[in-house]
Amino acid sequence: VKAGIINVTGYGGAELARILSRHPELDVVSVTGRSSAGKRLAEVFPHLSGTDMPITEELEGETDIVFSALPHAASAERLMPLIEAGTKVVDFSADFRLKDAAVYSEWYKVDHPSPTTLQSAAYGLPELNRDEIRTSNLVANPGCYPTASILALAPAVAAGLITEDVIIDAKSGVSGAGRALSLNTHFSEVDENVKAYSVGGHRHMPEVTQELGRINPGPELRLTFLTHLIPMVRGILVTGYAPLNTGVTGTGETAAARVREAYEEYYRDEPFVTVTDEPPATKQTLGANNCLIYPTIDPRTYRLIVIACIDNLVKGAAGEAVQNANIMLGLPETAGLQQLALYP
Amino acid sequence: VKAGIINVTGYGGAELARILSRHPELDVVSVTGRSSAGKRLAEVFPHLSGTDMPITEELEGETDIVFSALPHAASAERLMPLIEAGTKVVDFSADFRLKDAAVYSEWYKVDHPSPTTLQSAAYGLPELNRDEIRTSNLVANPGCYPTASILALAPAVAAGLITEDVIIDAKSGVSGAGRALSLNTHFSEVDENVKAYSVGGHRHMPEVTQELGRINPGPELRLTFLTHLIPMVRGILVTGYAPLNTGVTGTGETAAARVREAYEEYYRDEPFVTVTDEPPATKQTLGANNCLIYPTIDPRTYRLIVIACIDNLVKGAAGEAVQNANIMLGLPETAGLQQLALYP
Amino acid sequence: VKAGIINVTGYGGAELARILSRHPELDVVSVTGRSSAGKRLAEVFPHLSGTDMPITEELEGETDIVFSALPHAASAERLMPLIEAGTKVVDFSADFRLKDAAVYSEWYKVDHPSPTTLQSAAYGLPELNRDEIRTSNLVANPGCYPTASILALAPAVAAGLITEDVIIDAKSGVSGAGRALSLNTHFSEVDENVKAYSVGGHRHMPEVTQELGRINPGPELRLTFLTHLIPMVRGILVTGYAPLNTGVTGTGETAAARVREAYEEYYRDEPFVTVTDEPPATKQTLGANNCLIYPTIDPRTYRLIVIACIDNLVKGAAGEAVQNANIMLGLPETAGLQQLALYP
Amino acid sequence: VKAGIINVTGYGGAELARILSRHPELDVVSVTGRSSAGKRLAEVFPHLSGTDMPITEELEGETDIVFSALPHAASAERLMPLIEAGTKVVDFSADFRLKDAAVYSEWYKVDHPSPTTLQSAAYGLPELNRDEIRTSNLVANPGCYPTASILALAPAVAAGLITEDVIIDAKSGVSGAGRALSLNTHFSEVDENVKAYSVGGHRHMPEVTQELGRINPGPELRLTFLTHLIPMVRGILVTGYAPLNTGVTGTGETAAARVREAYEEYYRDEPFVTVTDEPPATKQTLGANNCLIYPTIDPRTYRLIVIACIDNLVKGAAGEAVQNANIMLGLPETAGLQQLALYP
Repeated sequence: VKAGIINVTGYGGAELARILSRHPELDVVSVTGRSSAGKRLAEVFPHLSGTDMPITEELEGETDIVFSALPHAASAERLMPLIEAGTKVVDFSADFRLKDAAVYSEWYKVDHPSPTTLQSAAYGLPELNRDEIRTSNLVANPGCYPTASILALAPAVAAGLITEDVIIDAKSGVSGAGRALSLNTHFSEVDENVKAYSVGGHRHMPEVTQELGRINPGPELRLTFLTHLIPMVRGILVTGYAPLNTGVTGTGETAAARVREAYEEYYRDEPFVTVTDEPPATKQTLGANNCLIYPTIDPRTYRLIVIACIDNLVKGAAGEAVQNANIMLGLPETAGLQQLALYP
Repeated sequence: VKAGIINVTGYGGAELARILSRHPELDVVSVTGRSSAGKRLAEVFPHLSGTDMPITEELEGETDIVFSALPHAASAERLMPLIEAGTKVVDFSADFRLKDAAVYSEWYKVDHPSPTTLQSAAYGLPELNRDEIRTSNLVANPGCYPTASILALAPAVAAGLITEDVIIDAKSGVSGAGRALSLNTHFSEVDENVKAYSVGGHRHMPEVTQELGRINPGPELRLTFLTHLIPMVRGILVTGYAPLNTGVTGTGETAAARVREAYEEYYRDEPFVTVTDEPPATKQTLGANNCLIYPTIDPRTYRLIVIACIDNLVKGAAGEAVQNANIMLGLPETAGLQQLALYP
Repeated sequence: VKAGIINVTGYGGAELARILSRHPELDVVSVTGRSSAGKRLAEVFPHLSGTDMPITEELEGETDIVFSALPHAASAERLMPLIEAGTKVVDFSADFRLKDAAVYSEWYKVDHPSPTTLQSAAYGLPELNRDEIRTSNLVANPGCYPTASILALAPAVAAGLITEDVIIDAKSGVSGAGRALSLNTHFSEVDENVKAYSVGGHRHMPEVTQELGRINPGPELRLTFLTHLIPMVRGILVTGYAPLNTGVTGTGETAAARVREAYEEYYRDEPFVTVTDEPPATKQTLGANNCLIYPTIDPRTYRLIVIACIDNLVKGAAGEAVQNANIMLGLPETAGLQQLALYP
Repeated sequence: VKAGIINVTGYGGAELARILSRHPELDVVSVTGRSSAGKRLAEVFPHLSGTDMPITEELEGETDIVFSALPHAASAERLMPLIEAGTKVVDFSADFRLKDAAVYSEWYKVDHPSPTTLQSAAYGLPELNRDEIRTSNLVANPGCYPTASILALAPAVAAGLITEDVIIDAKSGVSGAGRALSLNTHFSEVDENVKAYSVGGHRHMPEVTQELGRINPGPELRLTFLTHLIPMVRGILVTGYAPLNTGVTGTGETAAARVREAYEEYYRDEPFVTVTDEPPATKQTLGANNCLIYPTIDPRTYRLIVIACIDNLVKGAAGEAVQNANIMLGLPETAGLQQLALYP
């Protein structure tokens, strides 16, 4: 199977190239870049010297599937001809994640270039939407925060264990901000430091409410979603809080057991989600396509506390994209994704 | 004024020695250690070579004020004779923070050695209890998390801006765990990693509910308090969430303004608390005795979001201890504490 | 092929388990631990849950090859019966690296338990000793510093490009110090810090002189070897300096070209050594079994400057052990070792 | 005494503002910036809110001494009118460090704007040139690497303990690269990474040879000087290597003693240089104006090994500038510089 990568030169694209280099079925035949077009991949990323090839301005040759790691707006624009031609596409950007073009405009401050396409795109979180992904030619790869956040809360929402008053406090490493230069990613500013950012509202929030809303169309989620930047390269950890619906969970020790049971049941057959016995740490996911989830309760206040973590560039981006591609192409879902985390 | 430091060899004690070395009125005349007794201070901490002295087993000579940086239980035991003799004491441990000996026993798993002393101790958060501290000979220096947490929420609680459903998501650097050896502070385990810990309940929680309860004796706080370890040495950042009491704050833009006004008013004359215009970062407090607080609201859900940060070893420990001592001794409250943060 | 790992619970052993989990031919059938015996591997190392098994006190069942990650002295003691029984063994410790038992005693402060075995052991640096490794049942896996140091200098020594006055300034991440607890690996002490250590002489030095001496039995190397600890988890970078033998290299631009040519020639067919066009960075080796080497000259002083880096736990330990095992077993040398570096 | 700071908005300038805020005699009355002119200091650097003032394009009001933290070339251009008017000036840039305009042009790739001024400038390393600084109106503040490097080697050169074959292997934190944006200071690229840079020759080298040459005008130093970037914010550690002149030092144990004695003697009365008993660590200098030096020998090869470290923004920049200003103004040399290092 021949694959192309549009904009390989960001961290998401480079990580995709790395993962696909060990994929048993998918061959990367063409990669594009913007400022780096004309160079070779190993020149820009020496760690990819084992999978070197030229970086071109446009995709070259035939491709069975195309991954785009362009930013929003630019991605949709570049992909529309491919989508219309029926090429299978996995898009890393936000362009096809939201079903409602008005919500897209509100958060991304641009009109959507092709609102009619939104309904035909699948939101690429396999654990929720596997069937839809299988039959779609256009898959919107979720954001890194939403992957962890939705997986953290889906079992509780699906089973009605919590009320709609959800708070997600998220912590991310710096690679989530990409490779572009900014004082916000300058080592001397970021190291030995933690701060909240996008306090007025992070763009990844509407994906979370949309997808959790699809699971359980009850009262709309009243979500507060706040992101923090912490001094590490890879990894996202989200901590979710919500009042238990004690009518469903009961109280006392049965509440905790009921919660745990719901999570274990929900993810029983998932190859890339593990419900853990101890609070997980991002380092346990470094370089691996797994999401670790620890659900528990605060017995003093009967709130759900759920902690989830991923490698933002793998399960939160490139690994999830490969997982989606495997599903779209009818390959084993775990193909190319069995690397264990690097520890320590 | 002659000061003694009991157990100077942890991070809290060493930081106290550093701060006092520049204090215009307080002279450290004696320091004790446990395993390091017999060595010199500069041998254990080369950065203190400018303020060298022998480390002894017991305090030597006369002292007007004694700081204890011993762990809980050991501290009370060592201090009781001094307290009974009327020596002024600032205790870094948890031994005199809680008013209720039963709560102490529940969280610290030991019986309190002197329950009757608890009522006479002042909880050493000057911004709340300045008058009490001034007239007390025994001041319990707050924990690092409680300092940031209580200061973050006090104005909202005092003004009745929020309901009792409070969530605090706290993030701490590693020095908060002290100098003792543990896999939890091993560089290779902690670096490039974030995780929640003490998920079942952190010992610092009862201080927070006690002190906020004293501000506003309405319905008891239903607090969920969760701590996370992040890969940096110094700094604590707490993010507080609570539903606005919209009967008090109103809605729309007036709510945000009302919240901000309450915070600015509450801390108007405080030398060490700043209400900031932008979300603060721990690095802005490195080595300084200040607490930065940013209150805002989530306009989608009408929740208070308040972010506060400190240097856990300064405003969260040694700096606050000096602030308390200054008050107890009738010195200017800012004496020895005017160092600006080191940045970057 | 059935493999056993003795002392899987250090970083070297755990990394070996991770690498072998993806090896196409080698199956780990038994792992031992000391304090962790009785637990399961995934309990101690959650990132290995994909390759879980019990940790026992002794190896169980039949094994075709045994890896020992025990410390020196303990390793030889445990391995002697296996060695005498003719089992293929790769030893991570220093016990079989030095040919001279007196040198071993001088640096490791214990008598060697089996001096007569030393001559039959192969020093497991495949790029220098591939044939010897192929025919040996006992391979001493090199230390992490020696792997980088010997590979950095071997081409220059072999071609007589430099005099014997060699200085190696080495920088290591903290994982090289292992998982044991020490103030030297305490996060708060190590982070944002750099220092030299073992200034009186590091135990890895005699391996370097021994192996470089075998390449070119001219005048003995006058080596100064100094190690520094830097605040990162994985990675070693060594910088080597030596006067050019300008009788061999010539002067002017030909000297630099001559040096480069010698390095490229020496490593032309090596799968795991790359002579780079730019100074390499340890991050380009993270998780990968490669050594990057950049040779150049200081044209002002006619000194060789050579920079080499590796992941100390992979090419400096577990990856190299697998490479050795592949050779010993007649498998393709790269089997199980083709993972690209994780970047960033 | 009224001071002005030109270009306060880099790390050197901001650190100077921080240090001067606690200076008992010097008052900062005017600060300039380039892109930040029109803002207030506390807006750009919240940690300086305790010493706030407007940032202007040009210095305003009268100043007794001016510090320039502009880059080279721009600095000389801006300072020439002040120098000609006889204002006391401390320049952080390289513009007045080198005595030979041709050497300046070779390394900085621009013609020097005022070659005739070079001879009248003092090289601002007080430990070597105190008298010259005292009587000069123009002091060139040394580079961060040269401060550590020259102090590390001066006693050995002065006493003739070593030959001219000197190698300096230097390691620096990232703040030395300034606040400008670059992939070389991007957190995700720099963290968990070490690499050599400027391998072809670092601009700070000629200062080192110039100043060491002035100490002992024997055979010219044959210096190899190589810099490495390590993942921390502040701190420089240099490791120097040179053959002992055993005719002077003797051999055996007397050599080490002779070396140590020479260093202790050379720095006996220096307030900001400490000859240490153990290898120093950069963290012992964080925020402090001290240089720690550990001289020893390699007894196997009779080479000097000398390790020195500083905080690059303090003793390597702003602190040294204040030290120079104190000398120029006839103030106590230690005024405003007595802060102990922050540890951990």
